[in-house]
Amino acid sequence: MLRKILIANRGEIAVRIIRACAEMGIRSAAIYSEADRFALHVKKADESYYIGSEPLAGYLNIYGLVDLALRTGCDAIHPGYGFLSENAQFAKACQERGLVFIGPSAEVIQRMGDKTEARAAMKAAGLPVTPGSDGNLENVEQALQVAEQIGYPIMLKATSGGGGRGIRRCDNPDELRQNYQRVISEATKAFGSADVFLEKCVVNPIHIEVQVLADQFGNTIHLYERDCSVQRRNQKLIEIAPSPQLDEAQRQYLGGLAVMAAKAVGYTNAGTVEFLLDSNGRFYFMEMNTRVQVEHTITETITGVDIVEEQIRVAAGLPLRFKQEEIVRRGYAIQFRVNAEDPKNNFLPSFGHISRYYAPGGPGVRTDTAIYTGYEVPPFYDSMLAKVIVSAMTWEDAINRGERALKDMGLFGIKTTIPYYLRILAHPDFRRGRFNTGFVEANPDLINYSNKPRPEILASVLAAVVASHTGL
Amino acid sequence: MLRKILIANRGEIAVRIIRACAEMGIRSAAIYSEADRFALHVKKADESYYIGSEPLAGYLNIYGLVDLALRTGCDAIHPGYGFLSENAQFAKACQERGLVFIGPSAEVIQRMGDKTEARAAMKAAGLPVTPGSDGNLENVEQALQVAEQIGYPIMLKATSGGGGRGIRRCDNPDELRQNYQRVISEATKAFGSADVFLEKCVVNPIHIEVQVLADQFGNTIHLYERDCSVQRRNQKLIEIAPSPQLDEAQRQYLGGLAVMAAKAVGYTNAGTVEFLLDSNGRFYFMEMNTRVQVEHTITETITGVDIVEEQIRVAAGLPLRFKQEEIVRRGYAIQFRVNAEDPKNNFLPSFGHISRYYAPGGPGVRTDTAIYTGYEVPPFYDSMLAKVIVSAMTWEDAINRGERALKDMGLFGIKTTIPYYLRILAHPDFRRGRFNTGFVEANPDLINYSNKPRPEILASVLAAVVASHTGL
Repeated sequence: MLRKILIANRGEIAVRIIRACAEMGIRSAAIYSEADRFALHVKKADESYYIGSEPLAGYLNIYGLVDLALRTGCDAIHPGYGFLSENAQFAKACQERGLVFIGPSAEVIQRMGDKTEARAAMKAAGLPVTPGSDGNLENVEQALQVAEQIGYPIMLKATSGGGGRGIRRCDNPDELRQNYQRVISEATKAFGSADVFLEKCVVNPIHIEVQVLADQFGNTIHLYERDCSVQRRNQKLIEIAPSPQLDEAQRQYLGGLAVMAAKAVGYTNAGTVEFLLDSNGRFYFMEMNTRVQVEHTITETITGVDIVEEQIRVAAGLPLRFKQEEIVRRGYAIQFRVNAEDPKNNFLPSFGHISRYYAPGGPGVRTDTAIYTGYEVPPFYDSMLAKVIVSAMTWEDAINRGERALKDMGLFGIKTTIPYYLRILAHPDFRRGRFNTGFVEANPDLINYSNKPRPEILASVLAAVVASHTGL
Repeated sequence: MLRKILIANRGEIAVRIIRACAEMGIRSAAIYSEADRFALHVKKADESYYIGSEPLAGYLNIYGLVDLALRTGCDAIHPGYGFLSENAQFAKACQERGLVFIGPSAEVIQRMGDKTEARAAMKAAGLPVTPGSDGNLENVEQALQVAEQIGYPIMLKATSGGGGRGIRRCDNPDELRQNYQRVISEATKAFGSADVFLEKCVVNPIHIEVQVLADQFGNTIHLYERDCSVQRRNQKLIEIAPSPQLDEAQRQYLGGLAVMAAKAVGYTNAGTVEFLLDSNGRFYFMEMNTRVQVEHTITETITGVDIVEEQIRVAAGLPLRFKQEEIVRRGYAIQFRVNAEDPKNNFLPSFGHISRYYAPGGPGVRTDTAIYTGYEVPPFYDSMLAKVIVSAMTWEDAINRGERALKDMGLFGIKTTIPYYLRILAHPDFRRGRFNTGFVEANPDLINYSNKPRPEILASVLAAVVASHTGL
């Protein structure tokens, strides 16, 4: 087994990995920038190392981190999500210096990170892909020609893109002409590659992704799907497992496709195969994420499998502990990404001092967070403060529990997306399990909640004031 | 469905019931004594009612509470555990005044509360009971005679007793003579009845209890067992579901017995049938608890069934939502009762100001508590501050997760049993799943933990001090 893992990340996912290490008897080494000096992952890890005054540079310093790991006696690196997690160079540097990279091989990361290569590999493996340019586009004329063949709207995408960036929808030749140079320059800036391709735009699809796990002995299983259709500008807000919009036959079909995809590319470790479901009930492969995802938690909840622990085990060369037939789902799980944003103010980030934090509790509630009372949320990182995960035996009970848990949570000092999520939970379409990636845009009134404190909170505050003044 | 429930309790179980009400769309009405004015259940309930300056009287005032419920428009009362939860008179008063009592009928509470009657009923239903006096003892001579027949050691017990009180072990006729009057006077004082009986003492048994659920239509199911052998002076400290000490055949046998017992007495609502397992592998019926138990949480965790919600549903006249064959166990769950006690000081209660509280989080962790940062723990009630429930797919993983979660928890200002539980988790007998009710007494060295803060905490405190002084 591994002895010490460098966690090349911060925030809640660093805490999540530290917890897995603690449970497995593996030492954890955290890293922190100046801005993260008082972050929870620093307090919770067995060891912590300062990686410089820049907020981001240290977390992205491939050779610096590999050196640090070797210097401090680590035998492995866990990249978490974001930062260097899908950077093939990072995986390769670990490999070359004798460190275990907790993820798939550099070759697979490289291949799946190149969207046109991934499309080609998946098509070859027998997966349905959207019609599009087979390979990168050479110039705008070729783009116009392909678009004409498959029909508008189309999506123009950066080949090396990810996380919803470097993507433009084009509804007609004019828009395609306008966007072509723009996407190329965005792609060059953001991903260091000018390659772009295009594919048919699936309008307002249902976003379904399948979690897979694979060891180094050729064992590959899936842990069923997640429904991540509730998004705002390609950023997931609420994730659900399993999807209330699939029937059992679709579920089995997709699980089989995901395992087939993973096997076809020699995938190891945890990964996610993302699909789009169009309004005619057709599935299309979208992309493969070669890392642990923010929303892995809901899959853990419905299957009981600890995905991060399995990641570490298979990276260490151990076989998977579960066969496909041993994976049993129970009920529904919903994850809410509690973001430091003000929905009423166009989701403007709301960083600063958390004056009070109280985690929700009771049955069927899990919280993954790195905040605490008195924590200063730095403005340099992404705005997710906490993940609240609820579960229950039925879809309706899970929704009601989500409502209860979000109201249970105490988070004061900054604006959050909690009141916005309460509105989503009350929406009839959401409650009957009918939503696609257009849901948020189609419901602009979701921001029309009251900012006034709930009467019961007011009442207890008043009671406290009265009591303290009357000496009761 | 019910519209509003009066919660005739306080602390974490009141919060637990309020949460169930919130999720079911039922209004909750809390009650509070002077000492509980700032308690969490008061803040969380939809309505709260002051029940007087005495710490206990209001919570035990049968007619006062029934009147309050009627006056405030409640249609039901949930008694929680402790206080009036097993008081037949309370159930009867509700019944007579047209309130739904969320529990079994007054008749069943009465019958199961009388230990000699319960023994007789269970014997008649075909359950194994320990050899003992069939009925109450008439005098010390009869006691000595029965004890001679069944053999020492014997347990002398208050017929109306419960919660581990009114019980004395007698190893020989001299001790029986000495204890006879003592138990009678204890019983009279504590339970208002001088009735006593005796039974064979099962020395250091394994304590196994089976959770049952029954509706008003004759449907009765069990939710498997809990192992509550880790006790100190008959007070449970750590509970486990399922028992790592039973095999599948024993598990099925006990589940069947519990359902048979519940059916035999016409049981409705949630209840627990407690058994002792002796060193020869024989089970004996011990008693039936006619209420929700502190440790119902671990059964919820392994089965996914929300026991409090089912309690409310069946009390409202709805059928059970699950058939026996639909109850599927997953993994292991362990509950730690985090008590405000100082184990090093003979478990002396340690009440007062909680200067900081931080709930443990991450995968497989649930916390049920009514404390918060700044809360003053009043000295009038029981010392349990919080229940930390962990779960994982294997017994070993559950233990490791327990260790991690207890270390994760931040609870400062008062002494707790957390360091004591960490020692239990590290004990080889506990880890290999071998323990009985003599475990705590047999291991007096469990209190030999260090009170010094863990080095990593010290390090981060120092770092913070240094940083704040150097302006870093």
